[in-house]
Amino acid sequence: MVKRIQVATRGKGLTEITLAVAEVVRAAGVDEGLCTVFIQHTSASLVIQENADPSARRDLERWLDRLVVEDDPQYTHTSEGPDDMPAHIKAALTATSLSIPVASGQLGLGTWQGIYVWEHRHRGGRRGVLVQVG
Amino acid sequence: MVKRIQVATRGKGLTEITLAVAEVVRAAGVDEGLCTVFIQHTSASLVIQENADPSARRDLERWLDRLVVEDDPQYTHTSEGPDDMPAHIKAALTATSLSIPVASGQLGLGTWQGIYVWEHRHRGGRRGVLVQVG
Amino acid sequence: MVKRIQVATRGKGLTEITLAVAEVVRAAGVDEGLCTVFIQHTSASLVIQENADPSARRDLERWLDRLVVEDDPQYTHTSEGPDDMPAHIKAALTATSLSIPVASGQLGLGTWQGIYVWEHRHRGGRRGVLVQVG
Repeated sequence: MVKRIQVATRGKGLTEITLAVAEVVRAAGVDEGLCTVFIQHTSASLVIQENADPSARRDLERWLDRLVVEDDPQYTHTSEGPDDMPAHIKAALTATSLSIPVASGQLGLGTWQGIYVWEHRHRGGRRGVLVQVG
Repeated sequence: MVKRIQVATRGKGLTEITLAVAEVVRAAGVDEGLCTVFIQHTSASLVIQENADPSARRDLERWLDRLVVEDDPQYTHTSEGPDDMPAHIKAALTATSLSIPVASGQLGLGTWQGIYVWEHRHRGGRRGVLVQVG
Repeated sequence: MVKRIQVATRGKGLTEITLAVAEVVRAAGVDEGLCTVFIQHTSASLVIQENADPSARRDLERWLDRLVVEDDPQYTHTSEGPDDMPAHIKAALTATSLSIPVASGQLGLGTWQGIYVWEHRHRGGRRGVLVQVG
């Protein structure tokens, strides 16, 4: 079973999708198996991070922003705006796909784990995410 | 088939779990398929690295330590200790899940590949890892 | 179904394997499912990146080259050449496995996504890649 969900991001940062993914798992009715989340973009990515304290996600976002700067004079791929090349690099350093075992019909996430879409463009947009359960 | 294994880490660094994962694959009795390893934490992660020369794993650990420093004045998430925010960043830059094809009943690892839990906290602890074979 | 493909890389950089992976999916005849790509090496890795403008892939390659330098005096794992330790680090920061949902018999890639082997050694070589469809 493959379902496509659309995630509206409001600019750079993390948008939680744990509940939407869990809903696909529930609908699939699989007791033991695997749930794979895949993002269909190269300027946004996926990450599993702490779901408790928002300061951890903010610090994470800012840290990556300082590592992959916008005004790098060595970029040649600049036609799509100053945030496009950094977005591709950030996507390459994080995850495009994540696979989470399903046991007793539920995602095997740890207590403090949430699944997030990580938007790397300033403007954000509608991001397509495939969720496969099998 | 989903099995949970517990990995005791002794502070920062890599702990090999290849044999424990291979044992789950053997017990599952699957001839061709997929083995997924998933870590249920956000301050420890997974990595496949060279299993031969330990100096490669030591250099890897030290390199990441220099990239993601502890005493960054820009961190605001500091309530859980100076090594907590760096641990979340390191986890985001490495893997939370890894999937390895199974062929002829065995993990399809290359000759020099080992599967490791990468502990990012000083203290270490018991880390939950799910292994799914299907 | 697990198939091993061999990818000849010509030194550092990205080599596209999207068509080869799609061919394995076609041959498997699976309508809905999951395709997992796994590289059997620790000095080369996998990445999904923009398949349109080659300048994005060149900038990505150069950016990682500047982040993970060759002449780092702190490396102790130097016996296999100056590009070996950086190659292990780069592999750890990118992907060893990627999983892509299959729907209507096709890889669920976004319009601008291509699958690439990322060679991190100067010399390149023959890289073994497993493709599992199930």
